[in-house]
Amino acid sequence: MKLSERAQNVQASPIRKLMPYAQTAKKRGIKVYHLNIGQPDIPTPPEMINEYHKFSDQVLAYGPSQGLEVYQENLILYYKKHGINLETKDIIVTTAGSEAITFAMIVVANAGDEIIVPEPFYTNYNGFATMASIKLRAITTHAEDGFALPDDSAFEALISDKTKAIMLCNPGNPTGAVYSKAELTRIANICRKHELFLISDEVYREFIYDGLSHSSVLSLPDFDDNAIMVDSVSKRYSACGARIGCIISRNRAVMEATLKFAQARLCPPTVDQLAANACIFLPDSYFSGIVAEYQARRDLVYNELCAMEGVMCKKPAGAFYIIAKLPIADAEDFVIWMLTEFAIDGETVMSAPAQGFYATDGLGKDELRLAYILNQQDLKKAMYIFGEGLKAYQKIH
Amino acid sequence: MKLSERAQNVQASPIRKLMPYAQTAKKRGIKVYHLNIGQPDIPTPPEMINEYHKFSDQVLAYGPSQGLEVYQENLILYYKKHGINLETKDIIVTTAGSEAITFAMIVVANAGDEIIVPEPFYTNYNGFATMASIKLRAITTHAEDGFALPDDSAFEALISDKTKAIMLCNPGNPTGAVYSKAELTRIANICRKHELFLISDEVYREFIYDGLSHSSVLSLPDFDDNAIMVDSVSKRYSACGARIGCIISRNRAVMEATLKFAQARLCPPTVDQLAANACIFLPDSYFSGIVAEYQARRDLVYNELCAMEGVMCKKPAGAFYIIAKLPIADAEDFVIWMLTEFAIDGETVMSAPAQGFYATDGLGKDELRLAYILNQQDLKKAMYIFGEGLKAYQKIH
Repeated sequence: MKLSERAQNVQASPIRKLMPYAQTAKKRGIKVYHLNIGQPDIPTPPEMINEYHKFSDQVLAYGPSQGLEVYQENLILYYKKHGINLETKDIIVTTAGSEAITFAMIVVANAGDEIIVPEPFYTNYNGFATMASIKLRAITTHAEDGFALPDDSAFEALISDKTKAIMLCNPGNPTGAVYSKAELTRIANICRKHELFLISDEVYREFIYDGLSHSSVLSLPDFDDNAIMVDSVSKRYSACGARIGCIISRNRAVMEATLKFAQARLCPPTVDQLAANACIFLPDSYFSGIVAEYQARRDLVYNELCAMEGVMCKKPAGAFYIIAKLPIADAEDFVIWMLTEFAIDGETVMSAPAQGFYATDGLGKDELRLAYILNQQDLKKAMYIFGEGLKAYQKIH
Repeated sequence: MKLSERAQNVQASPIRKLMPYAQTAKKRGIKVYHLNIGQPDIPTPPEMINEYHKFSDQVLAYGPSQGLEVYQENLILYYKKHGINLETKDIIVTTAGSEAITFAMIVVANAGDEIIVPEPFYTNYNGFATMASIKLRAITTHAEDGFALPDDSAFEALISDKTKAIMLCNPGNPTGAVYSKAELTRIANICRKHELFLISDEVYREFIYDGLSHSSVLSLPDFDDNAIMVDSVSKRYSACGARIGCIISRNRAVMEATLKFAQARLCPPTVDQLAANACIFLPDSYFSGIVAEYQARRDLVYNELCAMEGVMCKKPAGAFYIIAKLPIADAEDFVIWMLTEFAIDGETVMSAPAQGFYATDGLGKDELRLAYILNQQDLKKAMYIFGEGLKAYQKIH
């Protein structure tokens, strides 16, 4: 029996595909520090967990396809705080950011169409694009200059009849890059000129350091027809298992079509929406504490990496990832080796090979993505083990 | 800004698109009996609701992409009870049956490929197929003979290079048809001969009446390479809002590809999986009570419909829907009229026009789907109002 080409071609997740090596290591009694996946260790707000405890409907029923009204309305308040004015009809609640990305892609692009994405990019964009038979056209950015967006000509060189959108992740996973309002405006101008949508993945909105602030695609003037934003509560409230996100646009046609796709899958999970809803009114201090913690972790990981001989990285301004260029040929081989051959006092570290975050063949082969999602004590230990492992690996390779 | 063709073409849900009329009716103070959507009124098992109350992890974390191990293992026990022997690797937990259907479709078919489905079929197959740019080829079945499957030649007339699978819903939504082992074997032989997958949607497995029993595609001998089953807890445990389903196949390549797509979307909701897991060990009496209740409802609705002049329907053997052919030209117009113009003592009935369940243009225009998901007292009242409404509508149309 032959599978579809998309099934034959779909990429294995570079974040998850090496997990069996970690499981085997654990079975050998090795403790593994997971810096490979963006699963924060920050406690989920008790307000959210309590909401699960409060659920007492007699029937756990379908909700509306666009999301529970109370949650939509409270999301309006959440975005208002961020200077984004919305109406209910601009928002469709989704099953996590994943579904929001899929909806955004299929609403703007047909099978065979193209979406331009700066690489390295959130690797799962590949899976969603493959699913929808959309081609991602990568525009390469570089660790050396902090993954700054290339100039207009680099974008325009990729634009053809098939191009339907540019997609950005801001703050960037895996780059940590934060795009300024001026940068976004420049990209918006390219989109206006070529009638492209700008899909902006803003799930790390709150995680911005050094006093920088976030610019949303929804805040750009005269850009409502082009702007589509995707969002998620997974990182915001350390609630990755809730699977609640949303897609937002002021373009009526986009939202009407999205609603039809949303109706086909009926609704996002009901209790999880109520739980996410309970987080809307967390005090501002909730985020300021967490952002300070992540900034300290970033500094720790960045400083440790800078102190390792031959390692190159730039200080990320947002999200909780850092890409490190290593003085070795094959970062994936190194990750596997760390899990199978190396340990200090029965402990080792897992990271994510960066190659899977690039669409261009051969790029990122000497790079890793580290997620700084552990407490500083563990992170300190993990970075020590990582550094010692790197030295040991270099000696024998 | 131009949307994709699939966004322009995606069908509005015939189950949900008329909801604004119901909302308007409710704002006028009208009570609406909802027979349009398969949202059962049966209480969700307290064992399931309690599981939400028990959740006490400090971090609501990602689960495995294939589903929580404990739930996968308990699903094996559930299917064993139904005579289906599985291993963990045969099962991937999904975000409801919706995601399972999408996965099944994209793994077997490329954009432009075709899947054969007997019509009328679960209307949301349309949305999933449009999303994936797959063409559904409908093979018409008829209310007059209880929606029996047509003979081999009718299937073979539709099979071409582009055909990748036949898809069945068994027991059928919206038909209520239950396919015998002999019927399934016949379809399996067609699939073997033409190297097609058989995707079987079995979410109504337990809801079979008159002492009939269910035959699963996974029970057919020598058919493991072709068989893909999709399932959901939504109807089984009256838990539509939990959004937990699964896709099952013993074809390794199918499951390996599905896992890669599943990894892209990370995982199904964590707490909802635990809640579904709590239902695995419900006593058999749970289902026998519910099935008796649904059978009584079916008899009530069927008898009421048979007593209405000019209405044609066959007694469904499973699921909780019935298709009724009405003595009017435009069933959708009738549904809207019932919501806007008609009421008895401030009460009216909403049903689903059947046209959206057919892919062939013009079919089903005089048919409705009724879901018998209300208690018998309400159902009795609803059917009375429906009958009176039909008579009144016929007088003025």
